[in-house]
Amino acid sequence: MTRIHVPVSLRWSDIDAYGHVNNAEMLRLLEEARIRAFWADDSLGADADAPATAVIAGGPGADTITLIAGQQIEYLAPAPYGRRPLDVQLWIGRLGGASIEICYEVRSPVVDDAEQEVYARASTTLVLFDVATNSPRRLTDAERSTWTEYLEEPIAFRSR
Amino acid sequence: MTRIHVPVSLRWSDIDAYGHVNNAEMLRLLEEARIRAFWADDSLGADADAPATAVIAGGPGADTITLIAGQQIEYLAPAPYGRRPLDVQLWIGRLGGASIEICYEVRSPVVDDAEQEVYARASTTLVLFDVATNSPRRLTDAERSTWTEYLEEPIAFRSR
Amino acid sequence: MTRIHVPVSLRWSDIDAYGHVNNAEMLRLLEEARIRAFWADDSLGADADAPATAVIAGGPGADTITLIAGQQIEYLAPAPYGRRPLDVQLWIGRLGGASIEICYEVRSPVVDDAEQEVYARASTTLVLFDVATNSPRRLTDAERSTWTEYLEEPIAFRSR
Amino acid sequence: MTRIHVPVSLRWSDIDAYGHVNNAEMLRLLEEARIRAFWADDSLGADADAPATAVIAGGPGADTITLIAGQQIEYLAPAPYGRRPLDVQLWIGRLGGASIEICYEVRSPVVDDAEQEVYARASTTLVLFDVATNSPRRLTDAERSTWTEYLEEPIAFRSR
Repeated sequence: MTRIHVPVSLRWSDIDAYGHVNNAEMLRLLEEARIRAFWADDSLGADADAPATAVIAGGPGADTITLIAGQQIEYLAPAPYGRRPLDVQLWIGRLGGASIEICYEVRSPVVDDAEQEVYARASTTLVLFDVATNSPRRLTDAERSTWTEYLEEPIAFRSR
Repeated sequence: MTRIHVPVSLRWSDIDAYGHVNNAEMLRLLEEARIRAFWADDSLGADADAPATAVIAGGPGADTITLIAGQQIEYLAPAPYGRRPLDVQLWIGRLGGASIEICYEVRSPVVDDAEQEVYARASTTLVLFDVATNSPRRLTDAERSTWTEYLEEPIAFRSR
Repeated sequence: MTRIHVPVSLRWSDIDAYGHVNNAEMLRLLEEARIRAFWADDSLGADADAPATAVIAGGPGADTITLIAGQQIEYLAPAPYGRRPLDVQLWIGRLGGASIEICYEVRSPVVDDAEQEVYARASTTLVLFDVATNSPRRLTDAERSTWTEYLEEPIAFRSR
Repeated sequence: MTRIHVPVSLRWSDIDAYGHVNNAEMLRLLEEARIRAFWADDSLGADADAPATAVIAGGPGADTITLIAGQQIEYLAPAPYGRRPLDVQLWIGRLGGASIEICYEVRSPVVDDAEQEVYARASTTLVLFDVATNSPRRLTDAERSTWTEYLEEPIAFRSR
């Protein structure tokens, strides 16, 4: 089981009046993990820091835009603020022709051997969209072969 | 078909570097519509402005907390910034024992007789949680009878 | 004393773990009021809804970009969430060659004859920047004459 | 010249439709740096990661609330998104009876020996507020002696 691990730091402003990470803000954390895991844009700098899966030439001005077709999320436990980054784990639930399903588990920070709490599980359907032709484009061979390693069962959500 | 209509104003900061309402920000718009549609908190002021469905004594300090168990969203068209509020339409997709499924369509502003564009469709599973007993609580009769009028088919999402 | 009044609706997510509008979020409210008061972009739609001061052809893709050189804000009272829009009052504190100082008072919602609370006072120095020449550009005569009507004393902040 | 250095990671969603870190979002980055620099709350976890200046028992539920009286910010250059955290440098511009002035420089990421760009300079006036007595409280001796080391000239803003 090969997952991409992206540490994502919380901000105190992610916490809402209930004292936990806000439900919509949780999708921002997913977005940040997804971009760091999949975009390979020179302009982001520090490409040495990018994971091996970062092979989409993404970002504004790029040839490919990544459109989000849909998302699903399940909240398992309230996530508190803390100094250490959350451990967002990502994998590919499905490799389609022009789309991929990205799956996530948002976990409590990695602290020694302590067991982690799972705050949320989610999935995003991402469509690769070619700016020049204004239409979806097929995954490249490079994308497909890179991501196949991270293919795992999609999340079985409790409902729907 | 009876829906609750909540006008929700966009902010320019909802727009991300792609020039459209950000995918996570869209869930904030749902949250805002949901709170305005369902919370009946005196502290919100202007209860005369609240719709008839606003019967949950919500908000921090209230007896009932509304926990979000899960959400699903489908993006149909990019939503641009504009002066006029979006027309968020809500209905109840399912009335459970201690939970409800809220369904949404996020539509372009109401402008005369112009046909509206649907930007997104979504659903939220909300659990009513009793602060005193620290456990889910059943819908009250008042809640059930008020909301039954807005019961409609849940959204059939394209995927999953 | 002529001020521009822009109603800006709060969102529940503006409220942080302290139960009040977050300090940084307050600047988003200023931004929203400023854009609605000064931008005259057809793409915003509903120009009929724009105030008379909205004469900058702003927004991405426009000839003029409005750059923010600096801001100052003073928080006078915590702002709670509520259904009714805050009353953001704006005026011009200084008309420069290529820049203006916008002043704000963020006030509690307008409710009949009730006295309003002032939550914050702030100022923004805005530079009009010409995209084609990549440099600041002078105020046009139309801008200057339109805005002169709203010229009032700048805010005397308590400190600095 | 002793400054506190807090690395603050950007999120792609900090970037607005102009392609740079949004002006209001910049104050969120200041907030995050400030909390990490000054709050000593066990509940934040990983106190070993906290800088020596983190001696305010802050956060909701604490005895002391830190109220923001005012802020000033000057934007020097647009800040782009990137993988590496910004280098937010903080120091104390003034130690008052019950308040401190925190000064910041928001700089580009630390990359080897490369010269850093300064994106923004800012200051926050923070009042220590005692929850029990509902009034400002004097700095403790421990706070004063800890922070004196970081006392430096306040920022001379270009205007006002």
